[in-house]
Amino acid sequence: MCGIIGLVQAADCEARGALPILAADGLTALQHRGTESAGLVGSGGVDRHAFDIVKGHGLVREIFTHEAISRLDDAVIVMGHNRYSTAGKKRPTINCVQPFVVYTAIGTIAIAHNGELVGAESKRNEALHQGVGLSTDTDSELIAQMVAKAVALNYKCRVNGDQWGDISKELAVTMSAFKTSYSLLVMTYDRLYAIRDPWGNRPLCVGTIYSSREPRNGTSQYALGYVAASESCALPPSARIDMEVKPGEIVEISRRGIRSVYQMKPHNPSAFCIFEYVYFARGDTILEGQQVQSVREETGRILAREAPIDADIVSNVPDSSTAAAIGYAEQSGIPYEPSLHRNSYVGRSFIQPNTELRQSAILRKFGVLKNNVRDRRIVLVDDSIVRGNTMGIIVKMLWDAGAKEVHLRIASPPLKYPCFMGINIPSSKELIAANKTLEEMEEMLGVTSLRYLSVDGLKEAVSKRLHSEPGFEPGHCTACLTGNYPVKLDF
Amino acid sequence: MCGIIGLVQAADCEARGALPILAADGLTALQHRGTESAGLVGSGGVDRHAFDIVKGHGLVREIFTHEAISRLDDAVIVMGHNRYSTAGKKRPTINCVQPFVVYTAIGTIAIAHNGELVGAESKRNEALHQGVGLSTDTDSELIAQMVAKAVALNYKCRVNGDQWGDISKELAVTMSAFKTSYSLLVMTYDRLYAIRDPWGNRPLCVGTIYSSREPRNGTSQYALGYVAASESCALPPSARIDMEVKPGEIVEISRRGIRSVYQMKPHNPSAFCIFEYVYFARGDTILEGQQVQSVREETGRILAREAPIDADIVSNVPDSSTAAAIGYAEQSGIPYEPSLHRNSYVGRSFIQPNTELRQSAILRKFGVLKNNVRDRRIVLVDDSIVRGNTMGIIVKMLWDAGAKEVHLRIASPPLKYPCFMGINIPSSKELIAANKTLEEMEEMLGVTSLRYLSVDGLKEAVSKRLHSEPGFEPGHCTACLTGNYPVKLDF
Amino acid sequence: MCGIIGLVQAADCEARGALPILAADGLTALQHRGTESAGLVGSGGVDRHAFDIVKGHGLVREIFTHEAISRLDDAVIVMGHNRYSTAGKKRPTINCVQPFVVYTAIGTIAIAHNGELVGAESKRNEALHQGVGLSTDTDSELIAQMVAKAVALNYKCRVNGDQWGDISKELAVTMSAFKTSYSLLVMTYDRLYAIRDPWGNRPLCVGTIYSSREPRNGTSQYALGYVAASESCALPPSARIDMEVKPGEIVEISRRGIRSVYQMKPHNPSAFCIFEYVYFARGDTILEGQQVQSVREETGRILAREAPIDADIVSNVPDSSTAAAIGYAEQSGIPYEPSLHRNSYVGRSFIQPNTELRQSAILRKFGVLKNNVRDRRIVLVDDSIVRGNTMGIIVKMLWDAGAKEVHLRIASPPLKYPCFMGINIPSSKELIAANKTLEEMEEMLGVTSLRYLSVDGLKEAVSKRLHSEPGFEPGHCTACLTGNYPVKLDF
Amino acid sequence: MCGIIGLVQAADCEARGALPILAADGLTALQHRGTESAGLVGSGGVDRHAFDIVKGHGLVREIFTHEAISRLDDAVIVMGHNRYSTAGKKRPTINCVQPFVVYTAIGTIAIAHNGELVGAESKRNEALHQGVGLSTDTDSELIAQMVAKAVALNYKCRVNGDQWGDISKELAVTMSAFKTSYSLLVMTYDRLYAIRDPWGNRPLCVGTIYSSREPRNGTSQYALGYVAASESCALPPSARIDMEVKPGEIVEISRRGIRSVYQMKPHNPSAFCIFEYVYFARGDTILEGQQVQSVREETGRILAREAPIDADIVSNVPDSSTAAAIGYAEQSGIPYEPSLHRNSYVGRSFIQPNTELRQSAILRKFGVLKNNVRDRRIVLVDDSIVRGNTMGIIVKMLWDAGAKEVHLRIASPPLKYPCFMGINIPSSKELIAANKTLEEMEEMLGVTSLRYLSVDGLKEAVSKRLHSEPGFEPGHCTACLTGNYPVKLDF
Repeated sequence: MCGIIGLVQAADCEARGALPILAADGLTALQHRGTESAGLVGSGGVDRHAFDIVKGHGLVREIFTHEAISRLDDAVIVMGHNRYSTAGKKRPTINCVQPFVVYTAIGTIAIAHNGELVGAESKRNEALHQGVGLSTDTDSELIAQMVAKAVALNYKCRVNGDQWGDISKELAVTMSAFKTSYSLLVMTYDRLYAIRDPWGNRPLCVGTIYSSREPRNGTSQYALGYVAASESCALPPSARIDMEVKPGEIVEISRRGIRSVYQMKPHNPSAFCIFEYVYFARGDTILEGQQVQSVREETGRILAREAPIDADIVSNVPDSSTAAAIGYAEQSGIPYEPSLHRNSYVGRSFIQPNTELRQSAILRKFGVLKNNVRDRRIVLVDDSIVRGNTMGIIVKMLWDAGAKEVHLRIASPPLKYPCFMGINIPSSKELIAANKTLEEMEEMLGVTSLRYLSVDGLKEAVSKRLHSEPGFEPGHCTACLTGNYPVKLDF
Repeated sequence: MCGIIGLVQAADCEARGALPILAADGLTALQHRGTESAGLVGSGGVDRHAFDIVKGHGLVREIFTHEAISRLDDAVIVMGHNRYSTAGKKRPTINCVQPFVVYTAIGTIAIAHNGELVGAESKRNEALHQGVGLSTDTDSELIAQMVAKAVALNYKCRVNGDQWGDISKELAVTMSAFKTSYSLLVMTYDRLYAIRDPWGNRPLCVGTIYSSREPRNGTSQYALGYVAASESCALPPSARIDMEVKPGEIVEISRRGIRSVYQMKPHNPSAFCIFEYVYFARGDTILEGQQVQSVREETGRILAREAPIDADIVSNVPDSSTAAAIGYAEQSGIPYEPSLHRNSYVGRSFIQPNTELRQSAILRKFGVLKNNVRDRRIVLVDDSIVRGNTMGIIVKMLWDAGAKEVHLRIASPPLKYPCFMGINIPSSKELIAANKTLEEMEEMLGVTSLRYLSVDGLKEAVSKRLHSEPGFEPGHCTACLTGNYPVKLDF
Repeated sequence: MCGIIGLVQAADCEARGALPILAADGLTALQHRGTESAGLVGSGGVDRHAFDIVKGHGLVREIFTHEAISRLDDAVIVMGHNRYSTAGKKRPTINCVQPFVVYTAIGTIAIAHNGELVGAESKRNEALHQGVGLSTDTDSELIAQMVAKAVALNYKCRVNGDQWGDISKELAVTMSAFKTSYSLLVMTYDRLYAIRDPWGNRPLCVGTIYSSREPRNGTSQYALGYVAASESCALPPSARIDMEVKPGEIVEISRRGIRSVYQMKPHNPSAFCIFEYVYFARGDTILEGQQVQSVREETGRILAREAPIDADIVSNVPDSSTAAAIGYAEQSGIPYEPSLHRNSYVGRSFIQPNTELRQSAILRKFGVLKNNVRDRRIVLVDDSIVRGNTMGIIVKMLWDAGAKEVHLRIASPPLKYPCFMGINIPSSKELIAANKTLEEMEEMLGVTSLRYLSVDGLKEAVSKRLHSEPGFEPGHCTACLTGNYPVKLDF
Repeated sequence: MCGIIGLVQAADCEARGALPILAADGLTALQHRGTESAGLVGSGGVDRHAFDIVKGHGLVREIFTHEAISRLDDAVIVMGHNRYSTAGKKRPTINCVQPFVVYTAIGTIAIAHNGELVGAESKRNEALHQGVGLSTDTDSELIAQMVAKAVALNYKCRVNGDQWGDISKELAVTMSAFKTSYSLLVMTYDRLYAIRDPWGNRPLCVGTIYSSREPRNGTSQYALGYVAASESCALPPSARIDMEVKPGEIVEISRRGIRSVYQMKPHNPSAFCIFEYVYFARGDTILEGQQVQSVREETGRILAREAPIDADIVSNVPDSSTAAAIGYAEQSGIPYEPSLHRNSYVGRSFIQPNTELRQSAILRKFGVLKNNVRDRRIVLVDDSIVRGNTMGIIVKMLWDAGAKEVHLRIASPPLKYPCFMGINIPSSKELIAANKTLEEMEEMLGVTSLRYLSVDGLKEAVSKRLHSEPGFEPGHCTACLTGNYPVKLDF
């Protein structure tokens, strides 16, 4: 998972310094997609080479101090990236922080990538054996070098025409070497390209920033700029979403506006990651035309029908499963009432010398609302279970506080298979649902009962208000739940 | 507002390094009471002079790195303090970070204070004119110097008896110079004193840390240590609350246990800050025997009775007013459904060059769940309104998202008067409710209707399950709402 | 050792922001007197309470960033302090960083102290038993509290007269409780006091900052301000030294100028630390009317007469003993030629896993000029030997580079006794000269011969151009060399 | 200017963690060649891909904390680079910090470069148009990509033979595309290449690290490892220099030892930068077989013959011109005596609000030894004059201190032309000697007389003890003094 955003100032608009602030704000809104590192790149729109770059490890608010982003004040195009925390891998070096920037034969370009390229390894070896040195092991650098090669080989014809700076064809050629998964922003000195893979695996939308938020009252509105982002929640307040980039589509955004410049053959049905709905995306984001929060409420309602139980209250595990819990409560008629307080100030855990203290650290993250729990039969709704460690401790907290019954309801199917398209899911060996029966899990987690949403139930929730374009057959990747990968994996 | 905590290891317990971790965890749980700075002080229990100190500006998780707190690993008594952000005042120096530590004639003592001493200024002048230099303008240093003087003048009799290190009488003499408001922890090399002012204005509780969390199953439990804290949510998971310190009571905690050593004449009725229920305390904290979250739900229920309205959904302003909103929904029968997503990654705002961008920063903190809002009549419940700036913008977001009606319901009475007992409420000039009629506020905030909970309604909610000790008549300070201050103010 | 400086802007002078820069520059010039921490305090000259403070651990250039010192831009009086590195003691807390600032009955005062008070412990106990709490174990806080008491008790008479703010008498009363060693700056909101103990143990001078550096050409000069500092090298470029504060003298500096306000009975002869000449003071500083560099050259000349040797070159140990080496060369007629290059970029040593590497770290600090050393008979002049570790390695480097003979000449007598007046000399147990004969040292250090300057020789060098005031009999403290302490030590 | 170092552990040697410490020590010894940033790269000698990298901005001692370099503890080959401060250029990004590391078809390689490639721009464009993207504008990345291409195209033949990992031929092919100026270290997973351009413009030497420092006494010595470095001063204490890399030579260093593997046709005469002698190199470094300090003393002696004057003392401008001043003094018979003290604690200057204070900052760096200056006729020797600003202020300090005459003697010829081979000399417009006559400079600097060393004089000093290999005709680049560039410049 990563978050990407790009902003372009409209041709007539004067707003020095606004773009980097909107970009940093946007990355803050996308922070849930990646907290390891972040970067911003800006171009003044005139010099083909002079890009300004600010990068760092940590949260957006730590990296992009006012002083840091002021280096981009002259930019009319800005692009940014939040990098996902890849715990367990090698210590990330600053070279890996995106966007990746390269000088090419026709000027500097920058790449921001969300996803994971299936088949990257062979393309990478091909590049190395063609004599290209690579300074990181990121997909972004590989794409950057492939684009650099593509534009260099087509340089001449560009100079002759009036298409200076249009690299859409080279991007199409380059990216057709890969199937999935990528949502990509590519920035030249005067253009931004938003590209989504033919499977439409990762989200990407495009919008216009207007001069005022409300178009009512007859006052005229005009475009201040244009924006592309992983999720609509990252758009500036006065922006309106124009489109979700279609599977296989390349959209060009320049100071003159937004236009679709290329359509790679889309895969039908598409394979949009269903876990974006379950867990990754923010509740107020619009995906496939529908609000994520509404889909989550719907999963709760279907779950209540699939796995009903007689109980006193329905509780969430804050903050991730609130929508599903509300849906479950609504459908079941059992009142929604929190059982847990979540302390938002908890940071990294202190290293704990013994088990009692180690549990203490996890416990410290949650406080039990004892009066709500004591002598109550509780339906605890969560969005998913990975290893089960934290859930076991939470359940124990409820018992300690005097709960009478604890019925765990998961608003998604069991997580059983690894993801090769950008999500850092542990290997099957570590996934509790891949290794235990429902009864074993009930015992291990210490719950009165445990039920999951069915795959069909999840699909139903996701399809309810889904909007799709003519000629594009909507579909979802459920590989981590079903093992059905959308493309053949060669390893 | 500040948060204080103290921990003492039981006499037979061996757990090197546990205390500073539990203290840091406790301060994390109390972080909502103060985020400006924090400090921890530890004593090994043997040397009367050698206290170890760790202090810093910022959040607990930033200051108390594993390396930093390891300096306190040998401590058997640890005391900590979270300092409230006093925006607008002079830049805080590191000298002001509590606990305040002084060498005295009988050894080192440390002071951690929550509250604000009415009458401090005259005592402060008295000390200065007696020839004591003060290096900060904190109440804590003033108390420290007064205690230093009290123990120095009674030094001899102490040596003759077997009461070495017992300074309870000196504390009683010292603190009786003040009326309110203080909840105080005082630490000597081998003891901790928990003191609450005779009005009981600020919370303070005391508990025992047990060897296991659940006492069931016949397994025996023993005490690992003792703890005092501003709120029960800061107690370690395996601790149980023994008592809330009574108004005017001095409780001594040593490695041998907890005992009440002094009772100053309590003021009847007491004047416990009612805003602890409304806003400050954490939902899972127990105050006066009742769970704060339950009181807040009750305020919502009463508010629904006092100010009913026909609407489609009841929404909260995350994260502070969720309990009241749930109460309102339950009482009114209107479904509870969120309208807003709150981004927990938002840090300090970027400095904004113009109004549009400045609003953008506030807006960025919240995302509207448009599908839930469009064409809906919304009851928006919040806990309080101070200046009204943020609320105005939130309401506008709802209108922009297509709300049909926005009924604002505040689960506390209008905030009209300043607080001189520890809360950083702006002057009446800045308080919107002190300057505008209900109609003016409705217009300014742009809401369809605005209603507040009545003072009686709040009192009713607070009194519902309230537990008080015999001889102590419970009462609440409502000065910020009514102007009735519990003590005469001489300025 | 510490360095102190104070600056006062002249009454008619307008130079906002100049004082803190000059103070930081001055502390940089005094950095050799202390590198552990530093602080600056400023007063705007009007408000008796509002002092601005900037403090930190580390070097002046690290602490006093432009942003940090700009907090003092409105100051018309500024005072600063460099703290000596006290390796081996407890970790210094920020509370210990001077100047020490206290609110008193008549306003805020700040104290900066160079020296170490003989008898502080009993005064400290006296204060504690009078009921004053002390928050550090520094002499500065003790003095601050004693001054706070003195001014509080004499407050009334002050108000009646026209002497508001003059605390010279209280300072005289306070400081006469101590004998030595102190050079002190005391700052009130509108005055600065420069005080030297009756023994004159530590240096302190006072000067005037003029509007131009050169008074020639008939152009008129006027005073921009006034300055007091540990050493004349810290005076701004356009300043001229007016006086060295006399033993026992209190000099008051205000915006109206400099005046001597009190003379405590001086001790005759005085006991100025002779090691200031040998090691501590900067070469371009004037002490007792003579340039330190000239005294050091003279020690070299006398040493050449006392301990002559036939050799090819005279070398220094950079950078401390250059002057003495030049003097030795001049007197002996043997050419001065460096043998060693010193790398000024060497910081803290890396922790070294084995002996070879550990020596490497020391060696890395110096590079041998092999061509100058090979087959040469070298006189290596250094200012002093403490433990002898580094010297042993340096000598070995010379042998390894092919030196024929290495004659070590020390331009001061053997260091044998601890100092209780402010110098961090290790205990006699660690001092090589206190434990070994000359022959043993020659063998241990591996030199062809070793000779020290005699005590009489050092006294002769120090007395050559010494200037003293009528009524003041000059003398020097040689305690670390002779064991003759200027005051009786009670421990 | 930059500094480079590489270390290889001998095959039988066990010394985990030693190499990164020796490398950091070496970079500290080379710190004078570059203070902007530094990097270290290490290989464990087995995995062809896994290089560990530590990089940062600032001084070696700030970047390479013990924790940071411990990441390289398993390395058996380590390579490091100090980057020169390129003030005025674009803010350097972390990407520019060398060594530059790339994955290639045959494994990872790292490049550290001292110098500036004449003709880099056209090669760079060639690479871009062949489709290689470049992420920095450094010569090192260009070289890295060219080597990556060269090894990729020759990959097959390598696998068949026994030469796995030997890339000397590819390096020879790659580097012959450039004339000058480069001293280069190239590291593969198991080898280090030290390469010097055919003109020999920048220094580079190779040595062996022995088990003990002194080979005398018949005790046997064995090799612990091998080292290559810009200057011999960076070699570990127990290392001995084996050779200076010859112009055009490629030396391979592996765990089995040092061997010369390729000799490009050297340019005769060579063009070693003469300013290495005048200014850049450390005094204890050996260049062309002679000690730099000795050459500098010789320039002083020749200068005394070329530009004699009757005076009282000869002084240096610390710390750069001490050797030349000593040489001048020796030749002239006028005593050497310092006039100035240099404060080594001075860091970045504080921003100064006005001219008087701005001068103060420069002045603060030096203290005048007034007693040595007053009424004296001074010969002030410096190594060079660039813009003349600082010198003007220094001279004024001497006049202000009462100097009778100030004769400025520069131990190198006038600096008149820019350098395109790695030295950051300002444009001719800013060089005082390129724009003013000797008389004008005397007046501007305010000196009694000004004389420079002649070009012939400098050449004489440099040639006195110079050692050259048979077949290599020694010569020096004097372009910045004479405008005679060693290669044709095409821009």
